[in-house]
Amino acid sequence: MIRCGIVGYGFLGKRLASYLTRYKARGLALTILANSKGYLYSPTGFDSDSLPADIISHSGFRASNPVEVIGRGLVDLLVVLTPTNVYSGEPGLTYVREALKSGVDVVTADKGPLVVAFKELTSLAGSMGVSLCYEATVGGGIPIFSLARHSLRGDRILSIKGILNGTTNYILSRMHFEGLPLDLALQEAQMMGLAERDPSLDLEGIDSACKVVILANALLDLNKRLEDVKVKGITQVTSDAILAAKELGMTIKLVGSIEGGKLSVAPRLVRLNHPLCVHGSLNAIQFKLEILGDLTLIGRGAGESTLSALLSDIEWILAQKEASKGGR
Amino acid sequence: MIRCGIVGYGFLGKRLASYLTRYKARGLALTILANSKGYLYSPTGFDSDSLPADIISHSGFRASNPVEVIGRGLVDLLVVLTPTNVYSGEPGLTYVREALKSGVDVVTADKGPLVVAFKELTSLAGSMGVSLCYEATVGGGIPIFSLARHSLRGDRILSIKGILNGTTNYILSRMHFEGLPLDLALQEAQMMGLAERDPSLDLEGIDSACKVVILANALLDLNKRLEDVKVKGITQVTSDAILAAKELGMTIKLVGSIEGGKLSVAPRLVRLNHPLCVHGSLNAIQFKLEILGDLTLIGRGAGESTLSALLSDIEWILAQKEASKGGR
Repeated sequence: MIRCGIVGYGFLGKRLASYLTRYKARGLALTILANSKGYLYSPTGFDSDSLPADIISHSGFRASNPVEVIGRGLVDLLVVLTPTNVYSGEPGLTYVREALKSGVDVVTADKGPLVVAFKELTSLAGSMGVSLCYEATVGGGIPIFSLARHSLRGDRILSIKGILNGTTNYILSRMHFEGLPLDLALQEAQMMGLAERDPSLDLEGIDSACKVVILANALLDLNKRLEDVKVKGITQVTSDAILAAKELGMTIKLVGSIEGGKLSVAPRLVRLNHPLCVHGSLNAIQFKLEILGDLTLIGRGAGESTLSALLSDIEWILAQKEASKGGR
Repeated sequence: MIRCGIVGYGFLGKRLASYLTRYKARGLALTILANSKGYLYSPTGFDSDSLPADIISHSGFRASNPVEVIGRGLVDLLVVLTPTNVYSGEPGLTYVREALKSGVDVVTADKGPLVVAFKELTSLAGSMGVSLCYEATVGGGIPIFSLARHSLRGDRILSIKGILNGTTNYILSRMHFEGLPLDLALQEAQMMGLAERDPSLDLEGIDSACKVVILANALLDLNKRLEDVKVKGITQVTSDAILAAKELGMTIKLVGSIEGGKLSVAPRLVRLNHPLCVHGSLNAIQFKLEILGDLTLIGRGAGESTLSALLSDIEWILAQKEASKGGR
């Protein structure tokens, strides 16, 4: 039985926990539910009817640092869903690092640890012979890393472009279609729950830049950090500029790009009939491949779709474990 | 050493052969080059400078049916690139079937065998413990089957829609953007080498229908044949109809669809800003997934990109063999 823990028991953590209770027959028991304050432990694994609505107020709650859970050898697989700090990587960075050091497989949706310490963490995972999966960190549910790992192996990625932030894409789409000024479109996005708590990370392109860093390190074998990305956000984009673009059959999108070893995020003119030109809160990513040419993936960039990415990573780890156990 | 044979030594076969000569260090030797008339055999594998421009006029040419090559145990992996016959499946069907029966892994770009005998062939592969890979049959280089196999495992495909034929999409795009009538756009496509020898299979939706059959059987575990698809081609689509759609922010596309167990191909109105709405000879496929929602892939549907799909399949088979050999 693979013992799985979740650190971060918010909306996403609860939804994931609910799905994972169905995995018992597949050999995965959800034994730990943790947040930064402490954890609940169920040696046989939580079931759908024993899943708590909240962990701190639950009777079995043990106040503790999640690192102790790892140190005590209570889990084989840790899912890290901590809030993202793109500068320190914490608290996720410590949890991911300690888990890998202890030989625990890690699945994470937190960009912070990867932006701050990609090479350190992937090298650590490699030397410990464990998996570090982060499909959920870029493009929501679009299976970018899985696709590259499994499906593009006979080819070579030359460059990457993407619309990687749903909030700014929603805002720019509303400006394009309705002629709204940026501040009104932002208010609308906030009312719809599409803008994060601090919209500046989105508007100023930092969130997109983090995703560009992860893509560059993971898929183009570079060793880049946030400060290596030339970043310009959308705060200077006006409705007039979008209107002028529209008259030429184009629009303005916030495009992250990795080309010739250079990383950038900036508002760019994109043709309206270009595959990357998606609207609303959709994300899109385009690989330029040596043989295949351009391959574009489009999907929901956030919310429920992130769950799909986490489950895909967990399935991959289960398959790896089955393969090594079964001898093939 | 894995001994690989190619049946079908036309443009695609030659390009693939050229790539595969680089795989010797990876443990794959290209030992057989065949067409319907006979074969060339190199026990140690062809090298880039020993690859013939043509096999029939080559000194070592042996007149023979490719089935004999399989029967004589000269290959471990057969790549079938025969011309497609969607009604009989031949000659590819016989080669694929005989290879699988002999315990030979198969990679094919020929839709015919799969449209005619999908369940028979996949069951045969399963019972013989060998692989049957057909990434190149649908969507050119877009890694549709690989993506579904590896990257969507925690999710469930509910329905599929796609623009699966580059020729008709090119024609409809020219009608949309230039206002050309269908016959002129077709002539243009033929001059550009985008229309196949017999354009009726494309124009009447048969090629798209074949791809819909393969998608339905492979990804939705149905057991459908060509006659189960309700097919309408683009021959009745007029520039006027496209113009009328355009005024409403839409266009007409030939859409293949699998929904609620029903398979169809027909010209459909598609919003210009819908992710599926790609132009020129591009292909697009959209999965509706239980958790992830809509996921769209866009890429080149034919030509060189097919090579990428073949290499991806071959890489997958190599990885499987390495895994079973290495004990994990």
